[in-house]
Amino acid sequence: MDYYIEPIARLISELSKLPGIGNKTAQRLAFYIINMPDEQVGQLASAIAEVKNKIRYCSICQNITDVNPCRICTNPQRDPSIICVVEDPRDVIAMEKTRDFRGLYHVLHGVISPMNGIGPDDIKIKELIARVSDDTVKEVILATNPDVEGEATAVYISKLLKPMGIKVTRIAHGLPVGGDLEYADEVTLSKALEGRREM
Amino acid sequence: MDYYIEPIARLISELSKLPGIGNKTAQRLAFYIINMPDEQVGQLASAIAEVKNKIRYCSICQNITDVNPCRICTNPQRDPSIICVVEDPRDVIAMEKTRDFRGLYHVLHGVISPMNGIGPDDIKIKELIARVSDDTVKEVILATNPDVEGEATAVYISKLLKPMGIKVTRIAHGLPVGGDLEYADEVTLSKALEGRREM
Repeated sequence: MDYYIEPIARLISELSKLPGIGNKTAQRLAFYIINMPDEQVGQLASAIAEVKNKIRYCSICQNITDVNPCRICTNPQRDPSIICVVEDPRDVIAMEKTRDFRGLYHVLHGVISPMNGIGPDDIKIKELIARVSDDTVKEVILATNPDVEGEATAVYISKLLKPMGIKVTRIAHGLPVGGDLEYADEVTLSKALEGRREM
Repeated sequence: MDYYIEPIARLISELSKLPGIGNKTAQRLAFYIINMPDEQVGQLASAIAEVKNKIRYCSICQNITDVNPCRICTNPQRDPSIICVVEDPRDVIAMEKTRDFRGLYHVLHGVISPMNGIGPDDIKIKELIARVSDDTVKEVILATNPDVEGEATAVYISKLLKPMGIKVTRIAHGLPVGGDLEYADEVTLSKALEGRREM
């Protein structure tokens, strides 16, 4: 790295902290940035610098937002009786892209993971319980990821919610659309079989 | 993109202008940046914003530098009688890494490329001619890339320099070390044969 002059070495070092960006890619990006028009460099730098200042967490659903409460929580066309619980803000985007869900969300910002020292109090479970305490909410869909930690978190939340008389559902496991039975792993296949429906 | 709130959408859009960063990678980077500590985000943003302000071009060799003249041009241990001509600053880094070259450099910042409308006056050829006009320089090594445009640029420069009584050399073409004869392309192989040396 000592072949580079300080401002470039510093930029390469900062860029290579980003995920999936190794030293070679960071060098390529750094030289690309050096050759970009000043205005565009400024826009990139300010977009990075400002993103954290401009976003906040919705006090209702805990999703990241620029207005509080967020646009989904305040949308009168959405059904406040159904809450879809997801792990992080990207999952909200993924759900919204389906255009199938018209209820509200609750973002946990993580999953229970004893291996990483993350317990129920470290994610937004308390806030979920508080939300469903009034009579508006009829159903909670648990849409945490279909992995060990996501499952465990879903089981944990469902045990808290069921005694409150709320319908708790879990998104279906099965074969992905366009997938191939031959290449499906056994667990997915057995879940798909288990979840079979009459046609 | 309209699933994202404005500051995130803006960051994703700025990041995806970088080479090799598509929309998906930009989304992943954006969310990573959102979750980075404030201090680290600030460092990344300022490294980007400041790199262009802090670098300038060496008035002698045209390389990018933080001091003018650059550290290579002012290094008394380097031999000012040999100048290695390269296309861009990254080539200087590549040459320096070999630790074999102790002369000075001249950075063209491009190659002659009529297809892209780049003529001899658009790259730093005039500056090279001016540098070799005094009697210090004995040899100019043309180390432009071994492709069509790099070759053409080398030929063009050598035609200008030879009448000035300067020794003009071109870096050797041949098989890369560790390469395999079987997989070498014909042009490289014939260049390797042509450039054979007695052992």
